[in-house]
Amino acid sequence: MFQESLKRLVQETDGGLAALLMGFDGIAVDSFVGNAMTSDMNTVGMEFSFILSQVRKATEILELGSVVELTIRAEKLTIMIRVLTPEYFLAIAIQPEGNLGKGRYLLRVLGPKFQAEL
Amino acid sequence: MFQESLKRLVQETDGGLAALLMGFDGIAVDSFVGNAMTSDMNTVGMEFSFILSQVRKATEILELGSVVELTIRAEKLTIMIRVLTPEYFLAIAIQPEGNLGKGRYLLRVLGPKFQAEL
Repeated sequence: MFQESLKRLVQETDGGLAALLMGFDGIAVDSFVGNAMTSDMNTVGMEFSFILSQVRKATEILELGSVVELTIRAEKLTIMIRVLTPEYFLAIAIQPEGNLGKGRYLLRVLGPKFQAEL
Repeated sequence: MFQESLKRLVQETDGGLAALLMGFDGIAVDSFVGNAMTSDMNTVGMEFSFILSQVRKATEILELGSVVELTIRAEKLTIMIRVLTPEYFLAIAIQPEGNLGKGRYLLRVLGPKFQAEL
């Protein structure tokens, strides 16, 4: 059900490595992992689901409204997360030199397809 | 010493509201806050210095290398953080409809000026 969109997300983003649909509790719904991905996408998602929950608490305290998107650029990997519903988020792992703008665009465009099924 | 660069960061970013140089311990070194900023930039920085430390732990566990940049897009505010040294980071607060790309560019370009003084 989600495979096609997850695959599209990875393959149409230059430098796209893996995509993941996950609950805020760190339990994955579905994922697509390309051959070039060297980290375990589920573990990455779990670590960042925790971070995302912390970010949610911070924006609440600061009265900044809901979290829309979170991007973490580390030396070896970029993780871009888009919050879909209060329970689920969509994440993409991109190579450091990959196209973040395209990844962000696809997360935004494909988001409603996922939301419709959640 | 840092005021000029902090001011430039805010004024040359479309939608730029405030900029902050802060330690990972949540203690601000210097900041520039424009008139349109409605949140307290020090409090925002403190909350996100905590998040940044959590992100650092996560990327360590995941062996993704050092954190380079962190972007949080909330409904009412976007926060973009660039790590300058293991002790300090530079943050800019941008309106939701502001120019993230310009903010990121200026963080990258002005970063070395701050690093040279830290």
